[in-house]
Amino acid sequence: MLMSNDRITAEILSENLKAISVAEFFEKNRHLLGYENTTKAMLTVVKELVDNSIDACEEAGILPNVNVSVKQSAENKFIIKVEDNGPGIVEDKVSFAFGKLLYGSKFHRLRQSRGTQGIGVSGAILYSQLTSGKPIKISSSVGKKFITNIALMIDVTKNEPHVISSKREKNPEKWHGIKVEMEIEGRYIEKGQSIPEYLKETAIMNPYTRIVYHGPNGNVIFPRAVHKLPKRPKEIKPHPYGVELGILRRMVKATKAKNILSFLKADFSRVGKTSALQMCKLAKINPKRKPRSLDHNDVTRLHKAMQTVKLVSPPTNCLSQLGEETIVKGLEKEIKAENFVAITRSPAVYRGHPFAVEVGIAYGGELNPNKTADLLRFANKVPLMYHQGDCAITQAAKEVDWRRYGLQQSSGSFPNGPLIILVHFASVWVPFTSEGKQAIASYPDIIKEVKLALQDAGRKLKKYISGKRRRHEIQMRRNLFERYIPEAAAAISKISDVHRVKIEHGLERMLKKGGLKEVDGEVEEIEEEDLNEEETEENRNEEES
Amino acid sequence: MLMSNDRITAEILSENLKAISVAEFFEKNRHLLGYENTTKAMLTVVKELVDNSIDACEEAGILPNVNVSVKQSAENKFIIKVEDNGPGIVEDKVSFAFGKLLYGSKFHRLRQSRGTQGIGVSGAILYSQLTSGKPIKISSSVGKKFITNIALMIDVTKNEPHVISSKREKNPEKWHGIKVEMEIEGRYIEKGQSIPEYLKETAIMNPYTRIVYHGPNGNVIFPRAVHKLPKRPKEIKPHPYGVELGILRRMVKATKAKNILSFLKADFSRVGKTSALQMCKLAKINPKRKPRSLDHNDVTRLHKAMQTVKLVSPPTNCLSQLGEETIVKGLEKEIKAENFVAITRSPAVYRGHPFAVEVGIAYGGELNPNKTADLLRFANKVPLMYHQGDCAITQAAKEVDWRRYGLQQSSGSFPNGPLIILVHFASVWVPFTSEGKQAIASYPDIIKEVKLALQDAGRKLKKYISGKRRRHEIQMRRNLFERYIPEAAAAISKISDVHRVKIEHGLERMLKKGGLKEVDGEVEEIEEEDLNEEETEENRNEEES
Repeated sequence: MLMSNDRITAEILSENLKAISVAEFFEKNRHLLGYENTTKAMLTVVKELVDNSIDACEEAGILPNVNVSVKQSAENKFIIKVEDNGPGIVEDKVSFAFGKLLYGSKFHRLRQSRGTQGIGVSGAILYSQLTSGKPIKISSSVGKKFITNIALMIDVTKNEPHVISSKREKNPEKWHGIKVEMEIEGRYIEKGQSIPEYLKETAIMNPYTRIVYHGPNGNVIFPRAVHKLPKRPKEIKPHPYGVELGILRRMVKATKAKNILSFLKADFSRVGKTSALQMCKLAKINPKRKPRSLDHNDVTRLHKAMQTVKLVSPPTNCLSQLGEETIVKGLEKEIKAENFVAITRSPAVYRGHPFAVEVGIAYGGELNPNKTADLLRFANKVPLMYHQGDCAITQAAKEVDWRRYGLQQSSGSFPNGPLIILVHFASVWVPFTSEGKQAIASYPDIIKEVKLALQDAGRKLKKYISGKRRRHEIQMRRNLFERYIPEAAAAISKISDVHRVKIEHGLERMLKKGGLKEVDGEVEEIEEEDLNEEETEENRNEEES
Repeated sequence: MLMSNDRITAEILSENLKAISVAEFFEKNRHLLGYENTTKAMLTVVKELVDNSIDACEEAGILPNVNVSVKQSAENKFIIKVEDNGPGIVEDKVSFAFGKLLYGSKFHRLRQSRGTQGIGVSGAILYSQLTSGKPIKISSSVGKKFITNIALMIDVTKNEPHVISSKREKNPEKWHGIKVEMEIEGRYIEKGQSIPEYLKETAIMNPYTRIVYHGPNGNVIFPRAVHKLPKRPKEIKPHPYGVELGILRRMVKATKAKNILSFLKADFSRVGKTSALQMCKLAKINPKRKPRSLDHNDVTRLHKAMQTVKLVSPPTNCLSQLGEETIVKGLEKEIKAENFVAITRSPAVYRGHPFAVEVGIAYGGELNPNKTADLLRFANKVPLMYHQGDCAITQAAKEVDWRRYGLQQSSGSFPNGPLIILVHFASVWVPFTSEGKQAIASYPDIIKEVKLALQDAGRKLKKYISGKRRRHEIQMRRNLFERYIPEAAAAISKISDVHRVKIEHGLERMLKKGGLKEVDGEVEEIEEEDLNEEETEENRNEEES
């Protein structure tokens, strides 16, 4: 053993070993949560608050009204306020829901929601108190007699809420919801990756939400375009294909089921008696054994058997897609284009987790035709504003051959044209590349499904683009013909002896009717063309299975 | 207030609110720690164990011996063993050091070390128990009478170690160190982002470490090339320029100092009596006031004053650079090139944190001349194997104009040629882009400093490349001349009447001496050229300040 003279002993070194609170960790590594610079930090704070507000409203079955206010308070300092009409939080849980990291209701649940990690809002509070040194203000009411007003800081070394003051106020109007106010260091911009852009994209993707924005340079209202909430997603049990050995081990120890058979049936989705018995047989385990009696080797065999038995895919009512109609409505209300298409794919499965991809495209109108398309990315209805280059959605959009759909495209990039492409990834578990939740990890299954959705939408768009081109050509021909009607009529009149004016009128009528017919015929023709594409409907179904 | 019929109350929603343990969080989001696929997971496990071993040895002043063993145990399953000769961990802290996330000695310390987050090894254990379902085995001894053998799992829901068994064993040889063994799901590769490549790069950057690798396909020994540890870094106090308002607020509450004057002097680096009094004056705070008596406004003013008063940069003895000589030794022992250069820059400061950049370049020899250069990135002596595209080091290497230094380069990429470029970023706080610690965030100060270091190294390399080119030309001329010596000698002999053989010998002697002189002269000439470069030493110093 080589040793230098100035050796320090294990005893000395071990003295400094101690626990670090998760709040300390994220305070120091706040760039992981999206607070690496003042511009992004400001957007992140607004995003966390608005996402929480819409999530709470949806969970409670309330059409969301969200008010957002941003006011400059000093050089580089801003006061952010967000208020919703959600269900509120019961008084004794308010301080924990805001003042403790890794605290929430969504983490253990297999059901689509915006937040899942219980870090978002408390991360914003950490950033606020770090840069302003001040407590944040929260008002909450569940719609009963009083409103609770709390001033709060996070005790960073303990990761616990530190309530500075808590007061009740009368609530004669039975207001319910949450109001949050905090001061932060920030830099305000309005273009690109900015608060107005984030709110606009949120309004597109959540058209059943009314957002009112009071910004430093004036107010913007994003009206509600749909007056019905999307279907409430159901919570599901884990699917055997997505359960890892270590998790199974824990489930076996924790289950309330009396025997293995009922454990498999009750604690997993898509496992019936037949499949459960088949698993037991493969694993050589008596189905009547108590789950707790299984040792390591039993669990390992059971785990393998669970991956082997053929099962139906997990249920997909845990997802809450928007649907094609709602996507079009959301785009229509915020984007001045002339044509809108949308596609909602059936759910697919990734590592036992169901997910679904939706795509919308806005085309033409006031959109700039001389640039590459804009891509709007969403995960569980939340706009993704950063790290576009790292995202599975971006990769998929670049891999699609858009030239097939009548668009121009340089290889490896987005198509060119007056185009906005919206992609929504909905899942019970979104594999974000970091806690900042700005990009989706490039898993092959996800990229494939996004590409298929984009291709579906591309086909729809092609009909419109081709139709438009044909209509344009017909109009040109018609204009040309129209110009020669008087001369043609005069010539025919000479030969036929019919009056020139009568012939002129006849020709004009023909032109009108004929033109319309030809345009209708055009659409049919394209449908046929479409079938000749390399990737027919059948091909795609094969790929999916 | 709009409300749909199926409203769910706040009471129901709040029932599900609960704390999530940080172990649960990282188990579910394990891709954040580098466990998103089986190939990378295997490398991550080895990396976490080896980094910890070398860190422990260095801290204790011991030249590290690290044994790494990887054995296949089943289809897709591997047993990983890592053993070191470090100081060991005292018995009652072993289970916590391994079995609890966010537990460690390095988080609160301002001093360069490999790990800082207290997540690495426990993250590996989480992955092991998730995919193998088995406990991990640890042996630890501080070099006294016994060795402690522990079998351990992490209680994920509590983030606490669960000790399965703990036994003492006699230690007649007074062994000290740590031995860890765990089974994991993995996929083993040997090329590219692999365990052998990681160990090789570790050996280059830590040439005072001896690593023995027992792989599935045979053994590799990476011998020790330097028999002295780098200087031990000192712990420093925070520099006022890097302290945020929220942190200052906490420091004011927690300090043991009796008044503000002594608080400023004792708790910060580079604050003497004069600067402290100046801060108090600017903040309009009596220097004799008790720190705890400061209210929010006082702290805010003090914080502003601390950023305003001119201070010396923080001390840099908290860093542990390798030094140019050691870098060259590390490269020489693992890479078969013909020329090696290295540069260690003086430390710079980023957000109050000192950091230093070192660069090494290996050139020629057996390296392939027909490809772009390889880039080896290191942060605090640890190889960064993934996310090269996201890293500040990569960006800097692409932004350097390598053509200036006699290399070919397409714009925006690495230079072409038989070249390996090594960059070491050393800091008390490395701003990694994720917990996986594979890339450094692209802060402008960091990119600038890396570029300057690469340019310094480029200049050194240029001398060699130009010299080599000139030597090549001279050799060609000499060969040509040599061939004509007999004829020239015969002609001169005729004219001068001196014997032909004598003249031949004379010419040959001249050729030998003259050639050497010319090559020496060449080097001087290049030195002069070097001064004419756009970026002279002076320019650079200005840029730095």
